[in-house]
Amino acid sequence: MDKPFRSKQQEQIYEVIFGYESRAGKLFDVVLICMIVISVTAVLFDSIESYHLNYGEFLFRLEWFFTIVFTIEYSFRLYSTRNARGYIFSFYGLIDLISILPTYIAFLFPSAQYLIVIRIMRVLRIFRILKLFRYMGEANLLYTALVQARRKIFVFLFSVLTLITIFGALMFIIEGPENGFNNIPQSIYWAIVTITTVGYGDISPQTPVGQFIAGLAMIFGYAIIAVPTGIIGAELMNEFQQRNRREASTNRQCVSCHATDHELDASYCKFCGNEVKQN
Amino acid sequence: MDKPFRSKQQEQIYEVIFGYESRAGKLFDVVLICMIVISVTAVLFDSIESYHLNYGEFLFRLEWFFTIVFTIEYSFRLYSTRNARGYIFSFYGLIDLISILPTYIAFLFPSAQYLIVIRIMRVLRIFRILKLFRYMGEANLLYTALVQARRKIFVFLFSVLTLITIFGALMFIIEGPENGFNNIPQSIYWAIVTITTVGYGDISPQTPVGQFIAGLAMIFGYAIIAVPTGIIGAELMNEFQQRNRREASTNRQCVSCHATDHELDASYCKFCGNEVKQN
Amino acid sequence: MDKPFRSKQQEQIYEVIFGYESRAGKLFDVVLICMIVISVTAVLFDSIESYHLNYGEFLFRLEWFFTIVFTIEYSFRLYSTRNARGYIFSFYGLIDLISILPTYIAFLFPSAQYLIVIRIMRVLRIFRILKLFRYMGEANLLYTALVQARRKIFVFLFSVLTLITIFGALMFIIEGPENGFNNIPQSIYWAIVTITTVGYGDISPQTPVGQFIAGLAMIFGYAIIAVPTGIIGAELMNEFQQRNRREASTNRQCVSCHATDHELDASYCKFCGNEVKQN
Amino acid sequence: MDKPFRSKQQEQIYEVIFGYESRAGKLFDVVLICMIVISVTAVLFDSIESYHLNYGEFLFRLEWFFTIVFTIEYSFRLYSTRNARGYIFSFYGLIDLISILPTYIAFLFPSAQYLIVIRIMRVLRIFRILKLFRYMGEANLLYTALVQARRKIFVFLFSVLTLITIFGALMFIIEGPENGFNNIPQSIYWAIVTITTVGYGDISPQTPVGQFIAGLAMIFGYAIIAVPTGIIGAELMNEFQQRNRREASTNRQCVSCHATDHELDASYCKFCGNEVKQN
Repeated sequence: MDKPFRSKQQEQIYEVIFGYESRAGKLFDVVLICMIVISVTAVLFDSIESYHLNYGEFLFRLEWFFTIVFTIEYSFRLYSTRNARGYIFSFYGLIDLISILPTYIAFLFPSAQYLIVIRIMRVLRIFRILKLFRYMGEANLLYTALVQARRKIFVFLFSVLTLITIFGALMFIIEGPENGFNNIPQSIYWAIVTITTVGYGDISPQTPVGQFIAGLAMIFGYAIIAVPTGIIGAELMNEFQQRNRREASTNRQCVSCHATDHELDASYCKFCGNEVKQN
Repeated sequence: MDKPFRSKQQEQIYEVIFGYESRAGKLFDVVLICMIVISVTAVLFDSIESYHLNYGEFLFRLEWFFTIVFTIEYSFRLYSTRNARGYIFSFYGLIDLISILPTYIAFLFPSAQYLIVIRIMRVLRIFRILKLFRYMGEANLLYTALVQARRKIFVFLFSVLTLITIFGALMFIIEGPENGFNNIPQSIYWAIVTITTVGYGDISPQTPVGQFIAGLAMIFGYAIIAVPTGIIGAELMNEFQQRNRREASTNRQCVSCHATDHELDASYCKFCGNEVKQN
Repeated sequence: MDKPFRSKQQEQIYEVIFGYESRAGKLFDVVLICMIVISVTAVLFDSIESYHLNYGEFLFRLEWFFTIVFTIEYSFRLYSTRNARGYIFSFYGLIDLISILPTYIAFLFPSAQYLIVIRIMRVLRIFRILKLFRYMGEANLLYTALVQARRKIFVFLFSVLTLITIFGALMFIIEGPENGFNNIPQSIYWAIVTITTVGYGDISPQTPVGQFIAGLAMIFGYAIIAVPTGIIGAELMNEFQQRNRREASTNRQCVSCHATDHELDASYCKFCGNEVKQN
Repeated sequence: MDKPFRSKQQEQIYEVIFGYESRAGKLFDVVLICMIVISVTAVLFDSIESYHLNYGEFLFRLEWFFTIVFTIEYSFRLYSTRNARGYIFSFYGLIDLISILPTYIAFLFPSAQYLIVIRIMRVLRIFRILKLFRYMGEANLLYTALVQARRKIFVFLFSVLTLITIFGALMFIIEGPENGFNNIPQSIYWAIVTITTVGYGDISPQTPVGQFIAGLAMIFGYAIIAVPTGIIGAELMNEFQQRNRREASTNRQCVSCHATDHELDASYCKFCGNEVKQN
């Protein structure tokens, strides 16, 4: 559904809506983010009963106003984009769509209205505006490290969830419904609360044996929290070093002894004193 | 108990049950994992009272069905394996056995039935199926790092447990049974809950002195959580660098003596002094 | 507002108040820190009801005494500093001002009196006194690493807050006011309590679906706590290596061109090709 | 108080009590550790009321038996050591003394009896026995890294405690005694509980403003937990690399091009192909 021949009007709208380099494009993004923030704030206040009773009518109209504005914006995005299908199924495209749906769905399921807070994700666009200030580079570094670490994190989480299930079942047998461990799914919930060191205390072991097992689970959780941290730290460190090496990599070689690991400012080989080839 | 002369039938069964490269072997593993997941899910639901009352009979039969299927599978594994003793005492062999025992033991101790969730550990087999997708390599890296770090982690946990015991006894003296610290083992449980930063709040200090000591324990726990993380991060980083070095050094060969373990910056073979092929 | 021509008296006061190398300057700083600690301790005790009833009058006078002393000290700082505007808007200048304001503001808003504990921040001056003992170097290393990591931390916190908002809204819809999730801001508070693994338990999910979502939030929080740790660890490691390299490279000099920035393994100057002095 | 001329008997006792290489020395250490563990276990059980009522008399005698045995052991240590003063004020010497005092002090203050659990610290001696198995090396690495990091950790903890004090005072003003924040010291206790992510929930903010400030404190605590972890991880990594470098450091230089960074198994320079000087 590519549109190779686009009208000049489409190009202009595209510049404003998708671009962030022209003056109008920047202004558009700033206004958009303000509207998103106001819209989400309105939903937050509407969920507080006293505000709902006093300003419910106003907040309801505000919500509809923003939803209609965002719907129009979405249409313009569809109209002006170079690749409509690509936009619809892109990360931001899906969020843009999900951000306007709850108000309409709320006709059928009233409580869906609060899902509008998903609009807050549109604010992540802010990183695109800040792109000029190197935030994207940092976000990319983080993203690359997380992508590199995904398999290790998966292996880790899978193993932890297996153990959480077993701890949960064990505690259900030991403590039982009379101590708040009503069933195994709830015991697994307790095990997650414990091993992640959240520790609500809404369910807690009462018998000495249960407290002993719980103690083991806690020390276990305490020791293994180190694993994802270590994984991500090591990946980030790796990314750092590769970036540094890329930046420093000059592929310069000594004419005489063929040593290659020279610094950027070197004119002579540090090993034999002969000249270094300039790139 | 090696079986050097095995029938062709045994070989075929072995391929299907233990292998994961043939079409039949893969299918077997997928079906097995589905059955394990269904079986564990059934136990989870059976532990919820309302489901137990309505579907208890059905879930009971389902459990027996799966237990019998897994018992047959275990027999076939014993029959077809090249080394029965080796299989029985291997990690997966023990889990396979433990996974079928609870149903039988439940004749004597009914609550043992729920231990069936240990079956979930059989799902760890999934890493073997995913082997083809490099998950094993990652798991191995994690495993090697943890093995390398085991002594440091042991020294660390041992020291922490010593301090936890002392904190526990101290709080028992300060707070005493009137504030919920009924005895030293329970106070040690409190100390574990606190130092691992779980913090249920089922037992918490009430006196100013007790709160002061508890504050010290928390800051202590907060500061030392860094230690295992640092250990594992450093070990992982170490593993990374060694792997990178190995990968980088293996694919260059000396023209004259064919040695292969050269560093990236080497122009001449470190063993015979002749030139190294550049990639 | 620079004062290039300062009286000798101003210079002397400056030496004592701002300096920490002369005997009088050191003494001044030690006395100051003692007074700050006593002053803050007095406020802490005044907030305890039994002490307030018995010693309230005395503690009130003590507070006024210290406030007047610190006000005089502030005037002397203004009088003797080389750059009054620079001092007023510096980090320590602002803290010095804020430290004396609460007592005066307490005329209007009595509870403001307790804000005097902000005086404790003046104790951070202690690092300046300890400067001679290399603490400043360490603090600088930490500071540099944090400054380097600020963009990554910002990207990370922004993303986490977005997800916290969505988790909060989701739990408000699922659990609702009847289970303690009275409105979305409070649900967001719950999400922060959960994802940071604090887990008070004052609000906790009661429905199975809510507990499932909460479990997801916890595992999510548990996995991503690794990210800031990894970021800061990697930055610190980076700082370490650069410092080591700097320290290692500065104390060798080229015989011919006197350049000093040579690497440890350099035998010849990389700038002129002559030999480098071995240490 | 050195004793250069010691009797043969003293030497023999020294070998058994302080040594861990002779058969008798090893046996002594194993028996000692068993007795310590039994002794501590007895105290733990004595603190449980039902055991105290039934076996109190027996456990009381057991405690006295062990205290007398340990007192005799302490005398022998004093008698046989080469340097009595050095032993008394050493880490283990102090623990050995503190381990026998509580039983005697319990004449005056009965509850002091439970302080006997400090005996558990004597078990740390186990690392000395395990010395032969490389545990000491690992413990030393950890210890060196912690010593290296002590200044950074101090700067960090000092800054955190300052902020905890301010958060505590702020919450006392906002929430006040009617919401459980009875005074500033208790509010500081709450701030510690919160920022270390322990989160008992015995004191928790009730007002929206309080919950907002608490949320800030949590996110702050969540972000800065990364700092000590990063510090220790980076220090450990540093120690690793230095140890590796020391192990690999051969100070071998190429005869012709003076390059020095050669691997252990290199016979020829990897840069110019000439021979490398053997150490």
